[in-house]
Amino acid sequence: MTDMPVFGAGIWHFATYKDRYATDGYGDPVTLIEQIDRAGAVGDLSVVDLNWPFAGYDGTLDEVKAALQRNNLKAIAITPEIYTRDFVKGSFTNPDPGVRKQAMELLHQATELAKDLGCSYVKLWPGQDGWDYPFQVDYHDIWNLALDGLRDLVSAHPDINFVIEYKPREPRVKIIFPNVARTLLGIEKIGLPNLGILLDFGHSLYGQETPADAAQLAIDYNRLFAIDVNDNMKGWDDDMVVGSVHLVETFEFFHTLRKNNWEGVWQLDQFPFREDSVEAAKQAIRFLKAVHHALDVLDDDALAAAQASHDALAAQRLVQKVLLSSMSEIA
Amino acid sequence: MTDMPVFGAGIWHFATYKDRYATDGYGDPVTLIEQIDRAGAVGDLSVVDLNWPFAGYDGTLDEVKAALQRNNLKAIAITPEIYTRDFVKGSFTNPDPGVRKQAMELLHQATELAKDLGCSYVKLWPGQDGWDYPFQVDYHDIWNLALDGLRDLVSAHPDINFVIEYKPREPRVKIIFPNVARTLLGIEKIGLPNLGILLDFGHSLYGQETPADAAQLAIDYNRLFAIDVNDNMKGWDDDMVVGSVHLVETFEFFHTLRKNNWEGVWQLDQFPFREDSVEAAKQAIRFLKAVHHALDVLDDDALAAAQASHDALAAQRLVQKVLLSSMSEIA
Amino acid sequence: MTDMPVFGAGIWHFATYKDRYATDGYGDPVTLIEQIDRAGAVGDLSVVDLNWPFAGYDGTLDEVKAALQRNNLKAIAITPEIYTRDFVKGSFTNPDPGVRKQAMELLHQATELAKDLGCSYVKLWPGQDGWDYPFQVDYHDIWNLALDGLRDLVSAHPDINFVIEYKPREPRVKIIFPNVARTLLGIEKIGLPNLGILLDFGHSLYGQETPADAAQLAIDYNRLFAIDVNDNMKGWDDDMVVGSVHLVETFEFFHTLRKNNWEGVWQLDQFPFREDSVEAAKQAIRFLKAVHHALDVLDDDALAAAQASHDALAAQRLVQKVLLSSMSEIA
Amino acid sequence: MTDMPVFGAGIWHFATYKDRYATDGYGDPVTLIEQIDRAGAVGDLSVVDLNWPFAGYDGTLDEVKAALQRNNLKAIAITPEIYTRDFVKGSFTNPDPGVRKQAMELLHQATELAKDLGCSYVKLWPGQDGWDYPFQVDYHDIWNLALDGLRDLVSAHPDINFVIEYKPREPRVKIIFPNVARTLLGIEKIGLPNLGILLDFGHSLYGQETPADAAQLAIDYNRLFAIDVNDNMKGWDDDMVVGSVHLVETFEFFHTLRKNNWEGVWQLDQFPFREDSVEAAKQAIRFLKAVHHALDVLDDDALAAAQASHDALAAQRLVQKVLLSSMSEIA
Repeated sequence: MTDMPVFGAGIWHFATYKDRYATDGYGDPVTLIEQIDRAGAVGDLSVVDLNWPFAGYDGTLDEVKAALQRNNLKAIAITPEIYTRDFVKGSFTNPDPGVRKQAMELLHQATELAKDLGCSYVKLWPGQDGWDYPFQVDYHDIWNLALDGLRDLVSAHPDINFVIEYKPREPRVKIIFPNVARTLLGIEKIGLPNLGILLDFGHSLYGQETPADAAQLAIDYNRLFAIDVNDNMKGWDDDMVVGSVHLVETFEFFHTLRKNNWEGVWQLDQFPFREDSVEAAKQAIRFLKAVHHALDVLDDDALAAAQASHDALAAQRLVQKVLLSSMSEIA
Repeated sequence: MTDMPVFGAGIWHFATYKDRYATDGYGDPVTLIEQIDRAGAVGDLSVVDLNWPFAGYDGTLDEVKAALQRNNLKAIAITPEIYTRDFVKGSFTNPDPGVRKQAMELLHQATELAKDLGCSYVKLWPGQDGWDYPFQVDYHDIWNLALDGLRDLVSAHPDINFVIEYKPREPRVKIIFPNVARTLLGIEKIGLPNLGILLDFGHSLYGQETPADAAQLAIDYNRLFAIDVNDNMKGWDDDMVVGSVHLVETFEFFHTLRKNNWEGVWQLDQFPFREDSVEAAKQAIRFLKAVHHALDVLDDDALAAAQASHDALAAQRLVQKVLLSSMSEIA
Repeated sequence: MTDMPVFGAGIWHFATYKDRYATDGYGDPVTLIEQIDRAGAVGDLSVVDLNWPFAGYDGTLDEVKAALQRNNLKAIAITPEIYTRDFVKGSFTNPDPGVRKQAMELLHQATELAKDLGCSYVKLWPGQDGWDYPFQVDYHDIWNLALDGLRDLVSAHPDINFVIEYKPREPRVKIIFPNVARTLLGIEKIGLPNLGILLDFGHSLYGQETPADAAQLAIDYNRLFAIDVNDNMKGWDDDMVVGSVHLVETFEFFHTLRKNNWEGVWQLDQFPFREDSVEAAKQAIRFLKAVHHALDVLDDDALAAAQASHDALAAQRLVQKVLLSSMSEIA
Repeated sequence: MTDMPVFGAGIWHFATYKDRYATDGYGDPVTLIEQIDRAGAVGDLSVVDLNWPFAGYDGTLDEVKAALQRNNLKAIAITPEIYTRDFVKGSFTNPDPGVRKQAMELLHQATELAKDLGCSYVKLWPGQDGWDYPFQVDYHDIWNLALDGLRDLVSAHPDINFVIEYKPREPRVKIIFPNVARTLLGIEKIGLPNLGILLDFGHSLYGQETPADAAQLAIDYNRLFAIDVNDNMKGWDDDMVVGSVHLVETFEFFHTLRKNNWEGVWQLDQFPFREDSVEAAKQAIRFLKAVHHALDVLDDDALAAAQASHDALAAQRLVQKVLLSSMSEIA
């Protein structure tokens, strides 16, 4: 049996949320320290991804470090908040040069923090960089602003990795890095070794990709630096609990990672709006352990043979055999 | 030339917004009185739909009335906020009987306010009533809870109308009143004369309906009590400015209303996250005036003849002739 | 353990197909008799649904009956072909009264054949009745033509059932019976006891419904006369093999049927374009047997308790426990 | 006023169609020569794209040339039929090496014909190259087969251009070249100067791209060799008449071409299943002429200024001004 993977989560998994209707939030605010303690309470998590600036936090960095330590957690990444009020018309691609400069300063500071915390990477999610209306932007200009800004940032910090988390839309109607291929095109044009992709399974799924195919492509370009998992109903980034809907495609995604000996963290990006966040994480990990076990017992040779002739029925039989027995094996 | 329609807007059109990323909001908060003043500044608006309880407002009702009056605005509707924190698992269909009771109390109070303000209707938008996950609810039970609650509320106030604004999803992954036919089924089962539909053009559009067909059906059941207009990219309730994308379908929607002599308010439900809200309303109304003019000059007999033989090309020619000349006529 | 359900299939499952690109077909033509023999070769099928007129068949009806008998098959339904060349602008709603008459004649003949064969119902699938372009049809007129035609047909044959198979689109861009609620509205308006719904799981799924909820609604109106199952990627009627993608939603669908003591046939409507059709049916039935077993061992009381509080996580745990162990139990 | 563009069409625009339901076709077969005569009857067409092998044609090539000549038409492209029965599991990526070889032979022959006819390019549309089911193929292998096959073909014919027409899906559930970025990634990896993109507006639109942005990207890589236009309802490749739904996005697409001085053919790829094909082409061209005129009078400087600040409202005002007056100007 292979070793269990390392599990992680975005720290926001343990926060509460607002949206445009429940503006008073889906629950009482949870402080950063409480979020870390909740992450610790899951029991299987080893790493967390931290948004920065720490929203509503007025303690010291040392207190954050102490909270992580007492929960046996490590910060794997910093996610700079380049999508809050100052940046609602974009960060790298904001039409205002002053705001672009402000974004770059925030990004450099976040990068220094990531180094201080020993993170593996800085996560860039330019969710406000894009457009809403036809004719709103010049597509040539906005794309080049994005690449220029990324090049400046990433080349200034050769000692740490950066990842772009692509997403088709939300909050912008269209985001400049909407899918794996467009993001790879940009990364190859920039041409720096320390810039890669964080592939969010749900973003890929509702963006009309086959997540396993997207992962394979990123791996073939040596750019799959990190992953996030969750689930959705294929029309939106619902950030539901892993394994609640797309069991087969989740299994295929991890099979592709295994086949390529990809050894990164299995990381949760869920938004349990109305659920207990610790339980939501536990449930996801329980399913992921079943997936991990099923991969151990999958007949790889027979599957490869089925795939060599594009035999969908044979491939599905092999998959169902292990996936639909997975829970009795691990229980 | 026919008379100009009465234009209206949801008062939230003139607020600022939050979402799950820009939790600090897309701009400084705008007070209710300021929102009313902005609505007045549009110049063409006659009525507004008011959310209640008035979020963050600590003035008196008389001050609200005065603000409306000085802006020549009338409250056409009250929209009770049955989708904030207390109700994130539903209002009429909340699993907790205590919360259902709380929702009903809020709804009765809102209805009294609507009567006090001389509104035409109370708008019910049960956006948190539904489900997110497979197996989360018993579909029989939740549907009957919805109908029972509606019957109790609406039968208690025979002196005012109620409308259900259906919507496929958001904030719930699935909402119990997702489309026009399901809503009509419920309304017919309830069987009260003062319960109808508010048809939001954008909800219909991204819910895979043909909005003009949905309007016709609601009219044929005598249940089209009100409409909202906006636009979107067909995957989500983007609440974009009217006429920015779906010009032909917007024109067809109003053509259907005109053909049936439907004479309600042409009401805006836009969320100008990153735009000036007064300008966004002006632009929508400018387009709607072009639509109104184009309807005046459309060759109705020729169109009816084309439709009698399902001649799509002939119908489109007639439509393009007036729609693609509309702006030079009104400018 | 409960009894195994009766399994069935549309006879077209065992044909070969054409589309607008592979106009020479996805394989050599398969005669009707061969299709019946293939259905028999599956081993678990008891009933088939037959298209009529029998495409490309020049044998006698007795030969068809004999072929069914030697394969231990019964005709459960006739599906009149009201979607071929003569009817590409509609059957019940064709703009040409002569074509509407021709459709009615075909339908009456098909109904007599269904009686002759001892079928349970006549299946109506008006896939060409609808529209493609904005402004192409008068929505009031087309809807009433559909209801009038159905009323004429169904009232003339009180001794047999009819079902409408709703579908959002294809081959028309919009079909007049697109979802469960619209179809029920029409059926209730017609008001005849022998007209119900055939719910195709895949149509419901890609039409933005929750199939289990759609089934519950149809059952609550006593109109769920039949079902078809298959799978798809949620954007189109892919008619893939059951259980290849949406395992949880398929399980929820059958759970809803079981809970309501619905006892009809579990029927396949798959299009194995590039697969062996007998193997595709076997694979589907193998999964359906696992579903049937999982339903036997599901903790219904615990699930009902979870649903009473809308506890998605608890419900999913119960489901995963039985679904993800189902294959080891039946193998 | 700028010169009128050259208009073209795929010759299949003037054929009749089959699908999986109307297997007897949407009309009587139209011979190749008749198709060419219909193309000539449009009056504004200068070039056509010809499928090859000529389906159901038993005349000589000289007769085809003569038919083109008497209609003042030139063949701009050959589209080899690598998506018919022999290739339903793929052409370049077929799992059977023998079928891959057969596809290559067909492609070489088609290329020779294209040269003989003086075509500008050979159009490659690998619509059957992809997958339907999870786990059906090895994504690494299938992608590399596609690139290897393309490299072999294109490098063998340096004297003529090739274009890949990308498409998200249909007939395969997933096609290997689904969007502009993925296609560019492949083209750049292959690294040959005579391989580019044919951007089909409708494919881009229903594939969640912004067609104008996709065009800009392809232009920035010097790979936009050709375009096709049509329209759809955003869920499928409906191949409707240009300008029937997405007027603004069509206008934006051509604005992007104009801004970049792109000077190729404005080519129709419509499937008028139930319409007169000559009329459908005329109607499209009538709209395209309105677009062309509107581009002439659009205030480019004001639009550039609006875009420089991402001012959606200002940009839309400028666009509506010319688009919604376009028909009165050209009529």
